[in-house]
Amino acid sequence: MPHIAMSPELAPGTPGLFQYRPETGRPLGELAEVLLRNPHSLSRGDRELIAAYVSVLNQCRFCSSTHSEVSAAQISGGRALVDKVIDDLDSAPISAKLKALITIAGATTRGGHEVTSPMVDAARQAGATDTEIHDTVLIAAAFCMFNRYCDGLAAIVPDDPAAYVGMAQMIINDGYRMCATGH
Amino acid sequence: MPHIAMSPELAPGTPGLFQYRPETGRPLGELAEVLLRNPHSLSRGDRELIAAYVSVLNQCRFCSSTHSEVSAAQISGGRALVDKVIDDLDSAPISAKLKALITIAGATTRGGHEVTSPMVDAARQAGATDTEIHDTVLIAAAFCMFNRYCDGLAAIVPDDPAAYVGMAQMIINDGYRMCATGH
Repeated sequence: MPHIAMSPELAPGTPGLFQYRPETGRPLGELAEVLLRNPHSLSRGDRELIAAYVSVLNQCRFCSSTHSEVSAAQISGGRALVDKVIDDLDSAPISAKLKALITIAGATTRGGHEVTSPMVDAARQAGATDTEIHDTVLIAAAFCMFNRYCDGLAAIVPDDPAAYVGMAQMIINDGYRMCATGH
Repeated sequence: MPHIAMSPELAPGTPGLFQYRPETGRPLGELAEVLLRNPHSLSRGDRELIAAYVSVLNQCRFCSSTHSEVSAAQISGGRALVDKVIDDLDSAPISAKLKALITIAGATTRGGHEVTSPMVDAARQAGATDTEIHDTVLIAAAFCMFNRYCDGLAAIVPDDPAAYVGMAQMIINDGYRMCATGH
């Protein structure tokens, strides 16, 4: 049960919190839309994988289930690849660039000062651009917020895996602005 | 030196990162404006104190210096009170409600699952509303993002204390939208 009184008509997880307080839900939905779905040199599947990876480290079941599902539906390699990256990043069959970026995301999750120059150099040598490095740090930082927002208020976390498949389809079809505010 | 190439004309700290990438700077500035400055039952000084407290826990020098300064300029008790809360929350001369809310913010900083029902009950018994509890968790979660964003990209952190006094005055006068996007 959430720590605050929320109508049962609201969505579960963070989308329900966005709807509960639209003044903050709007910029939060906009941030997620720009970071995860706007045109980018990193695919949507790759960016959702970074979000899922961070959410697993933060033990946020709602966000890790949702964003794993959204990534799996859009990344070549599907669910098996997503699970492999989450289980053991080092041996996962992804590009050196994405591996270096996910390493930076993991460090950001532990704390801002954990991101080191050698990590950034490794990403750059693997072909990462400044925008990709910037957005990776910000996606990781943003999910350190979303995860704490969700669990810090004990938002509803569905048990049924089908709920996350439905949520992922809604995000893929309509995006985060719609999911946050209903329009 | 920042991990990415940033023009020396950009502001230091997170405002410089907002200007570097306006697509994300806009919703981030909007989020800060709504959470810290919109009309609210918690004063601006109290909300900035929550932001400063979280930033100290996350060891983010730029954000803790800036938001301590903004709180000190607006809270009755000034700088001495802000320092007291940061040094020893338990003995600080603030209301039971604000103390309970800052306790929730500290828990959120450690992780979403660290916020417990007894902590929320204590805040409610001290008079906190659902919106105050919601916004406290979200301010803390948001600063877990801002702090990681700032330090994860090694944004410029001024040494001169006067720089933070100037930054605080700009925030107090013009707000976070202006500070993030220049208009």
